Order: sequence, then C-alpha cells, then structure tokens
Amino acid sequence: MSATIRVGVIGVGRIGKLHAENLASRIPGAQLVAVADVVPEAARENAARWHAAAVADYRALLEDPGVDAVAICSSSDTHATIIQDAAAAGKHIFCEKPLDYDLKKIDDALMAVQAAGVKLQVGFNRRFDVNFRKVREMVAEGKIGTPHILRITSRDPEAPPTPYLQGSGRMFLDMTIHDFDMARFLMDDEVSEIFAGGAVLVESEIGRAGDIDTAVMALRFAKGALGTIDNSRRSAYGYDQRVEVFGSEGIVTVGNNAPDAHVFSDQYGIHAPKPLYFFLERYRESYLVEMQEFINCIRRNTQPPVTGADGRISIVMALAAQRSCEENRAVVLTETAGG
Amino acid sequence: MSATIRVGVIGVGRIGKLHAENLASRIPGAQLVAVADVVPEAARENAARWHAAAVADYRALLEDPGVDAVAICSSSDTHATIIQDAAAAGKHIFCEKPLDYDLKKIDDALMAVQAAGVKLQVGFNRRFDVNFRKVREMVAEGKIGTPHILRITSRDPEAPPTPYLQGSGRMFLDMTIHDFDMARFLMDDEVSEIFAGGAVLVESEIGRAGDIDTAVMALRFAKGALGTIDNSRRSAYGYDQRVEVFGSEGIVTVGNNAPDAHVFSDQYGIHAPKPLYFFLERYRESYLVEMQEFINCIRRNTQPPVTGADGRISIVMALAAQRSCEENRAVVLTETAGG
Amino acid sequence: MSATIRVGVIGVGRIGKLHAENLASRIPGAQLVAVADVVPEAARENAARWHAAAVADYRALLEDPGVDAVAICSSSDTHATIIQDAAAAGKHIFCEKPLDYDLKKIDDALMAVQAAGVKLQVGFNRRFDVNFRKVREMVAEGKIGTPHILRITSRDPEAPPTPYLQGSGRMFLDMTIHDFDMARFLMDDEVSEIFAGGAVLVESEIGRAGDIDTAVMALRFAKGALGTIDNSRRSAYGYDQRVEVFGSEGIVTVGNNAPDAHVFSDQYGIHAPKPLYFFLERYRESYLVEMQEFINCIRRNTQPPVTGADGRISIVMALAAQRSCEENRAVVLTETAGG
Amino acid sequence: MSATIRVGVIGVGRIGKLHAENLASRIPGAQLVAVADVVPEAARENAARWHAAAVADYRALLEDPGVDAVAICSSSDTHATIIQDAAAAGKHIFCEKPLDYDLKKIDDALMAVQAAGVKLQVGFNRRFDVNFRKVREMVAEGKIGTPHILRITSRDPEAPPTPYLQGSGRMFLDMTIHDFDMARFLMDDEVSEIFAGGAVLVESEIGRAGDIDTAVMALRFAKGALGTIDNSRRSAYGYDQRVEVFGSEGIVTVGNNAPDAHVFSDQYGIHAPKPLYFFLERYRESYLVEMQEFINCIRRNTQPPVTGADGRISIVMALAAQRSCEENRAVVLTETAGG
Repeated sequence: MSATIRVGVIGVGRIGKLHAENLASRIPGAQLVAVADVVPEAARENAARWHAAAVADYRALLEDPGVDAVAICSSSDTHATIIQDAAAAGKHIFCEKPLDYDLKKIDDALMAVQAAGVKLQVGFNRRFDVNFRKVREMVAEGKIGTPHILRITSRDPEAPPTPYLQGSGRMFLDMTIHDFDMARFLMDDEVSEIFAGGAVLVESEIGRAGDIDTAVMALRFAKGALGTIDNSRRSAYGYDQRVEVFGSEGIVTVGNNAPDAHVFSDQYGIHAPKPLYFFLERYRESYLVEMQEFINCIRRNTQPPVTGADGRISIVMALAAQRSCEENRAVVLTETAGG
Repeated sequence: MSATIRVGVIGVGRIGKLHAENLASRIPGAQLVAVADVVPEAARENAARWHAAAVADYRALLEDPGVDAVAICSSSDTHATIIQDAAAAGKHIFCEKPLDYDLKKIDDALMAVQAAGVKLQVGFNRRFDVNFRKVREMVAEGKIGTPHILRITSRDPEAPPTPYLQGSGRMFLDMTIHDFDMARFLMDDEVSEIFAGGAVLVESEIGRAGDIDTAVMALRFAKGALGTIDNSRRSAYGYDQRVEVFGSEGIVTVGNNAPDAHVFSDQYGIHAPKPLYFFLERYRESYLVEMQEFINCIRRNTQPPVTGADGRISIVMALAAQRSCEENRAVVLTETAGG
Repeated sequence: MSATIRVGVIGVGRIGKLHAENLASRIPGAQLVAVADVVPEAARENAARWHAAAVADYRALLEDPGVDAVAICSSSDTHATIIQDAAAAGKHIFCEKPLDYDLKKIDDALMAVQAAGVKLQVGFNRRFDVNFRKVREMVAEGKIGTPHILRITSRDPEAPPTPYLQGSGRMFLDMTIHDFDMARFLMDDEVSEIFAGGAVLVESEIGRAGDIDTAVMALRFAKGALGTIDNSRRSAYGYDQRVEVFGSEGIVTVGNNAPDAHVFSDQYGIHAPKPLYFFLERYRESYLVEMQEFINCIRRNTQPPVTGADGRISIVMALAAQRSCEENRAVVLTETAGG
Repeated sequence: MSATIRVGVIGVGRIGKLHAENLASRIPGAQLVAVADVVPEAARENAARWHAAAVADYRALLEDPGVDAVAICSSSDTHATIIQDAAAAGKHIFCEKPLDYDLKKIDDALMAVQAAGVKLQVGFNRRFDVNFRKVREMVAEGKIGTPHILRITSRDPEAPPTPYLQGSGRMFLDMTIHDFDMARFLMDDEVSEIFAGGAVLVESEIGRAGDIDTAVMALRFAKGALGTIDNSRRSAYGYDQRVEVFGSEGIVTVGNNAPDAHVFSDQYGIHAPKPLYFFLERYRESYLVEMQEFINCIRRNTQPPVTGADGRISIVMALAAQRSCEENRAVVLTETAGG
C-alpha cells in the first residue's frame, strides 16, 4: 500500500461532520487535512477539532497540492459541479448521494471523472452494513437459490423539515434512492421496471409542498424476479430498515438493530427496545467502512465499491418511480434513462 | 339458543372431509347428518365414519327436511349453482371460497340467498385465526393509530398439480383471493385500486398453462392507505403467512406458527423449526372457529361474520389484479366490479 | 384395540373437571361413565353436563362393574388410599400427582397395584407437552451429544391461598415435584444428589405457614451431569416454564407459550404478549395427550408412560430437597429413599 | 479535565495487546507511552506499532516520570507484586483480574494502594457491556421491583490449554470469577453464601490436572435473594453469556450477541448465526469503555468504577465455591473472607 491519503471534507453539516471525524480518528491510512464549508464558522470549528485547515471556498481546498482526495458532503445541488471541479483538479472523490437530480449534469460529471482518471465513490453507505452485506453475500453464494422476491421496508423516524424537503428532490430522489440502490445490491441484478403508488398520510404540509410521505413500489428485475419497497417518512417506533430476499431454495432476512439486547417482562407483556434512532446511529459502522474502503481503493488503486454508474442508476430509478406515481402505471427504466 | 343445527356436507375432498369431521365431533350445537359427493365411495366412507347418511347427488340432501344447513365444499365451478339450489330449498349455506369466477353467476346466487332469507357464510377461514384476529382487533381499537401501510406475504409450500391449476381460475382467483380478503379484514377498509406484477419463476409448466406462480401487488385503500402483497406458489421453507399493519402510532405484525417452540444451537448456528406445513395444519383452529361461528349465527339468528358480499368483492379484486397484470397499470376496482 | 374404556372420575375440582371434560368429549376410545365427589352438588353438576352417573362416595363407583378405570383427582392426602381401593376393585388407575407425601403409604399403594395387575399412570402431564417432548426426543437421539447441564425455570403466576398451601406438603412436594419429574424425563437419567436453597420473598404469610416461596436447586445426575432449578410462587409476567439441556455437541431450549404471536411496536418499544396464564391454559394439550395415552395403554395392554415408580421418585427428590434446605448441604437421594 | 494521561502497559499477551491498542488509538485523554514485557520481542513489537517505548523490566517503566498510570496485564501471579511496586512509584493502576489468588497478598497490595493514594481499577470488563449495564440500571431503578432470583449462564467456547489451566488457579478463580463479580454488580447486593457442584465432563485431562470443567452454583444474597450460576469450559455453539434478574414486578434478561442479525430459512428450518466467538469479540466494546472510565477517573479524580475491594471479594467468592465443592455444603462467605 502507498502512503497516507490526505483528505479534505467539503461541507460539514450532519454527515460531513461524521466523515471528518471518521477520517481524522478512525480510518487507518487516511488523514483529514482540510475542511471547507460555506459557513466559515462550521469549517473553523470542525477543522480546529481535528487539527486540520479550514477554508470557506472549496476551490481553495482543490488547489492545495497537499490534498489527495475530497469527500463531498455539501448540499445536493452542488455535487455535480464540485465533482467536475475536483476531477479537473485531479482529486479522488467520495461524493454523498445523490450525484444530482439532473441526468445531464450527472453525465457531465461522470465524464469529467473518467477524463481525469480519478476515483469516484458514491455514498451508498448501507452497502457496507454488516447485515446487508451478509444478505448480499448469501444471495451471491446461491444459498437461497435463484432470487424470486425482494422485500424492502424503509421508514424514517420523522419527516425532515419542509424547507429541506423542498430542496431534496422529493421522496423518491431523497429517501427511496437508498432503497433503489439496496435493491440492485442485494439482488445483484438490475431493476427493469417500477410501479410506484404514493400518498400523503403523515403530514398534509408535505402534500402542499408537492411531495408525498408514504409509498409502495412493485419492482421487476432484469433476470425476472419481482420486488416490493415500502416507505414512510414517519415511523412511530423509530427507524425501520428491513430487507428480505426470497429464492427458490430459501430466504434470508434482516431486521432492525437495537441499542441493546435486553428484554423486560412485566404484568403488561414482554418488552424490547425500539430500533436505533436514525441513520447516524443505525449506520455508524457502515459510514466508517465505506470511507475505509474508499481510502483503500485509492491506496491499492482498485475500483471503488460504489461507482458513478451506481449513483446514476439510482437517479434513473427515482425518476421512473416519480413518473409511475404520476401516470399510475409501470414505467420501464429505459423511459427515464436519459441520453 | 335454538336446537342443534343439522348439517349436510356437499363434497368431501380435502377440505370437505375436514369440515365433516369438525361438524361431527368438535362443534357444540351442530350435528353432521349427511354427506354428499359425486364419488359415491367418498360419500360412503365419510358418512360411515361419522354415522351420517351418504348420498351421491347433493339434491337428495337438499330435499331432506332433516337438514338445516349445508356446507358446500365441492369443486369451485359448482358453488354458485349449489348455492342457488340450497337457497331455494331453504337451507342455510356455508360455502367454500370462491363463490364463482363469474360475477353474473355470483350475483344470481346472492340474489337467490337474499330472496330465500337464508344465511350465507363464505369460507375465508383466515379471518378466524387467533393471530390475524388480534391484528384486526388492534387496528380496530386504534392501537396503531391511522393505518398507513399493509404488508402481506403469502407463500405456499408447493404448487398444486397442473390439472388443479387449470380448473382453479389462475393464481389471483385461487390463491391471492385469501390475501385480498385479509387485506380488507385487517384494514377494515376497502381496496380501491390494485397494481399487480406477475412472473413464472417456480415452474415453467405453470406458465405454459397460462398462469403465473409469483406475484407482487401494490394496493390503494379507499381511506388512503397503501399496501403490498407478495405471493409465491413454492416456498422452500414452507408455508409463509405473515402480515403487518403500519400506522401513525405504531405497527403490529404476526409471523408464522411452528409445530413446536424448541431452539437448537450447535457448531453451525442456532436453529428453529420451519413453519407448520400448509393450510390444513396452519389453519386447523381457524377452520373450527369459522364453522362454530356459522352454526352460532344460525342458532342466534345473527349476521354471518363473512358475507356473500365479502365473497363477491374478493373476486372483483382478483379480476382487477388479473387485468392489471395484463395491462401493466393500476386498475381501479370499479373497472372490474361488474353489473 | 379393544373396546371403549369406561372411566369414572373421582374428585371434580379444577383438574378433575378438566379430565372429565376431556374423557367425555375429546378422547377417542374413552367414555366418561361416572363422577364422584365428596361435594354431591359438584358430582351432580359435572355428571349432568356429560350424561354420566353421579356418586358421592367413590366406593360406589369402584363397585360398579361398568367402570373399567378411574381418574383420581381428589385431594392429595386421599390418593394412596383410593389407589389401594381401586386396585383391589380391579380398576385401572390414573392418579394425579403426588401419589402421597408418605413413602410408606406410597409403597403400600404400589404393591396393591402390582398385586392386582392393573395399570397405574401418574399425572405428570408436562411430559406430554409438545415442546418438552421435543427436547426429550432430541436429547435421546443424541442431537446435543452427552448432556452436561440442565436448566429448569418454573415460576407460577401467583401463590395459592394459604389454606391450600397448608395441605399441599410445602413447595418442593407441591410445585417443584413437576420440575423434579421433568429433570429425570428430559435428561433420561436419575438425579443422585440435590442441594436446595429456599427463601420467603413473595409473601411473608407463606413463611409464617412454615413454607417457602422461592427456591434454587443444584442437581447432580447419576451419569455425571449437573443441573439447576429455580422456582418462584409468583411471577409478575405470568407462568414461566422454560427448560434447556446443554450437551457436548449443542443445546436445546424451549421458552414460554403465548396466547397469540402478535408483536406490537410503538414509541415506547417492541411489545409481545405475556405467556399463557397458568397450567390449565399452558398445558391444555398435554392434559389431553396424557389421558389419551392412559386410555391407549389400557386398550393396547402396554406399559403406562408415567409409572408408579416415577411418582415415587419425585417424592424422594422433594424430600431430599426439603432436607437439603434445612441442613444447608447437598443431600444424596439414598438418604431420603425410604424402605 | 486535566491533561492527557500517559499510560504504560505491563504485559502484552492477548489482553495487554488489546489494551495497548485501545490506549494508543481509541481513548480520548490517554496516550500509550511505554510497553513492558518479559519477552523483549513482544514489548518491542507492540511498542513499535504504537510509537511507544519498549522495556523488558516493568520497573524501568515505573521509574519513568513520564508515565502517569500503568495497565497490569502480566501473568496473574505477578499482579499483587506489581501493584505494590506501582503504588510505591505513585502510578495509578489498572489491573487485570484476578488481583491474586492469595488474600494476604491482595491485602498487602490494597494497603499499598491506599497508602500511596493512587487509583486502582480492577479489570472486570463485563460491567461495561451495554447489555449488562442496562440490566444493572433497570434493577437499580426498581423496574423489576425487589430482585428475587438471579440466573447467570457463562460458558466458554473452548477450554484453555492444560498448561494455562495449571497456572490459572482452577475454574472458580479463573473463569467463574467474572460471574461472581457480575452477580454482585447486577443485583447491587453482596453474596452471603455459595453452594457449588463441579464435574469433569468436557475433558478428562482437566480432571487429571485437579480442576473441573463444568459447575453449577446456588447463591444466597445478603438482602435475601437467591441465584444460580452455571459454567462450562466448552460450549459447542460458542461463547454463551446470558443473565437474567427476576424480581417482584418483572424480569430483565439479556442473551448473546451475534456477528450479524441475518436469519436464513430453508427446507431444514430457520437458522441464525452463533454468538460472537469469545471474549475478545464479545466484549470488544466493554474493554474500550472500562479503559476510558479508568482514564476519566484519573483526570476527574473520581472513584474508579471497579475497586480493589471488588477485586478482593471476587476472590473470596471463588474460594468459598472451591470449599463448597470440596465439602458438598453451602459455604458462608465469612468462612473464606480471610483477615
């Protein structure tokens, strides 16, 4: 392996802050060297904590020859542009999902990455969760035979604030996108067709903002299997992230992770703790592993485990779901696959 | 309560035999008095076992003034006709699902029942399962708040022989029909719209017979909730019958029943027994309870817990699913609701 | 098989009433012909319900040539005497546990049974529970290798009224006796030594009556294995009946049975129903099976599945536990084995 | 809080190596400055990995003014001596269990610690496990009412090599000692009396070495509660670490932790993964937390969460169990409490 990879984090909101901390203190082979944020105070604070440099404009970070790679954690609408700039600057790129909501901008960004010959890994962190990895591994090893039916349940503990929703590209692009990637990952297959039904059941304000908060989907895969996804923006009992793959020889399922494993019984019944609160708790380990693998793929010059193409397909799927929802029919992915 | 209800069973295949046994030995207030079957030997054998009369032609049974009620367990294509005949003869009627595959014939039969003023109960036995009843009860009591998402997984341990399939009206009418009824029952709501995707993954012979063996469905309910159903004709690990109702305040789920509750751990892992083999084992209690309630509703002169209208709606749903599958779009139930 | 076995039930308290009902309506090959109880009204009521004869004095029942067998469900202190009388009358005998609290009286009764050549089955119903049978079967088949450690947890939902306690022979003879039998049954081995520690933690009144309400025991088996039992007279979450057998190759465990299998999750956690309330609910099936096997062993002239010797050993174990508790040391079973 | 605590690790076998790694890379406020081991190569290797100094003789480390605290992970028979030396040198002390097998030596060491006014924390890492902490917390909060019965099952996946066993002070001192500490911790009470039964069932060689490999214990607590512990040196299905506390109002239990949460079902049954292999995997987090708390108690000048007295009592309990096993009677702890 080559030397330590020096990384700059661009955008230190909730998720950027986590990546900065992981890179600074928990990832062998990585060093956090700089932090950029449009809010100078946020940059300064995070930089100070980890003894890194702070900049307000990410371009300053890209110009720094002491930076080998960047982790793009800024707002979604800036991802494609920063990817292009980072590629032009010859930096390896870890980019949070989504790449963008516009396929044309995504294609430009991916072309820039290819032209520059840098690594690009997209932040589908759930692929690195030990449970989902195990499911994928068992499916790939043929333990369940030929996959026939995928089931994904994915429900958030609470809806984001409406202002966030308005910038988020609506539910399929913001939330279901993780499940779309998970569907491809677990089944080791491409989705060819999506039917989506949506509803506003959680908060009428979400409906007024032109979005939905509850959805069910029926998927058809290229190799013939079927699947369902269901989503809600608000689950009273917390973050619900379950998957199962049913095949000709068996089934593998994973349920939720709890903060501890105690079981309490009293005169009212048997009680166990709710799932871990939300993605930062539930996927703490997977955020760490994804970043470790990003660093490893640079040091070993290997293919990133989640590629730009993976990032693009998830958008095509979200657009198909969106169209299906509007037209109340199954949408073939070629309809929304763009250029 | 009035006197003992004297019942004749029409058709003693697998399910008729079970009802005959229950009526003869396990249902207070009922007496098995006669058994009819087009195979005289079958009628004789079952009749002898329970000290009842045997007839080949069910009409003989309908003419008998010593018969108060009939349980129709003959082949599906005879149900509507026998209902009409039984109603004309003034007998109360328990009829196995489906009523028929033709809505016109169903409507004629239901009209005959109404004109005769007899009771008609349709054999959706799963409604009487202690677990599903508990889910329904919790939903009805508002324990989960407003229902948002229903999930039903229903998979058989093995596909029926192809000859059976050909007479069965295809998967939605033969198998999913139970799930359609369960959807309405659990949610205490009507389904307004169905999208269904089907595939032939289990056995190519099923496809050659013009049927499917695997399906996923997306449902929309009248009050706004959404749902999914998934079906397979063959589950390697046995009969898989799980439901969950997710609502604004919580979720209630039920899994499968096992033959016993032992857990065995060895160097290979932790092992528990598979679910009970199939419907006769899994729903043994519920077959008993449904028949008890049929007898009770005659003795108490109350409304049957599963009505002819319930039986009809399940057919409308199956027809909608069938059409959706063919046209790859959501089908509103009014499209297939007939006359 | 021979003809129907005509049974008289002696004593129709809680458990006698259950056996009468099972014999009258659920046990092929058996017929309930008479009911005796020192409370004539109780005898009359149960007899009327099942169209049987009622007698106040059980001796009348023993003199009846139309009675083939008796089920002794009277108070514990009458068991040994009635066994002797029934044996003398040539009746086959099902006797509720305990045979007696006095080994001399037990030996006299067993000798009378042997002399008369009648069947005697003791009511250790738990042996017929599907879960415990499965454990026994797996141990016997060598699935867990050589048994090393047995664990039994057995806790009642509530303490019996003090008057009952005073006639019951104290906790080891009244309650733990079932666990002592279960220990021998599950391990297919004899217990050679018992250490018992007792305490009064549930109700001080129990202590004032000279009894205990909480106990832990350490067992040593003849073939070398060890075991623990723990008991409480009051479990807030209901009847707790768990066993596990740990061996050289694995472990088999069984937990409690619930009234239904629903799981409910809300903002407070994940909730499942408490165990079935008490022995009448938890062991409903096993009471039925034990009586069926008693009837079968008469009809087939085979050895009863639970013998008088089994009943006697459980008493020896209880006496050893009692002595251990008093002397705070391990007691070898030969010390209390009597004769 | 004060400055960074500079720690030297004495003994870098399996557990010392882990503490060195944690101190060097995962414990905010701590710095690994030196590593001592009687095997110079082991010291050098671990020191090099973490950029610390290596010494062969721990005395050199104690003389170093740049060392604030030591973690004693050398062989058990050296613990008491090193504690005395470290205390004399004014170093704070984290010491792996057991303090020693000789109460006189322990008392001398504890006196030296007290005289020097340094902190001493004993390595009962299980107290820091999130699950056991939760049980303790629920008991302490009165959630289960008054504790009545404690159950601990503790079984290793495989027996240590016989040479290790011979230096280990036999099973109660080497293995059960953790359970003895857990008993006091979970119940927030002292054990007053122990009955122990032992056997050689796993490996006859262990018996020839004068030790046992299987044990069951009955405990009596000062406040009146009872308890059981069972131990085996070899569990075919892996490391089995379960506890439950039963009280007047309910029960809290924790089971084992698995490497992942997948469940696989096939034609043979339902399968889940075995528990995590052994203590290094199972208690990875708790080793980290205990060391963090040791560092915190130095920086904040607070009482260590596991004291020298805790370490001493666990030895008294092991000696009582040993004597009970030999004399086949309950042993009151004052009998073995020494001094």
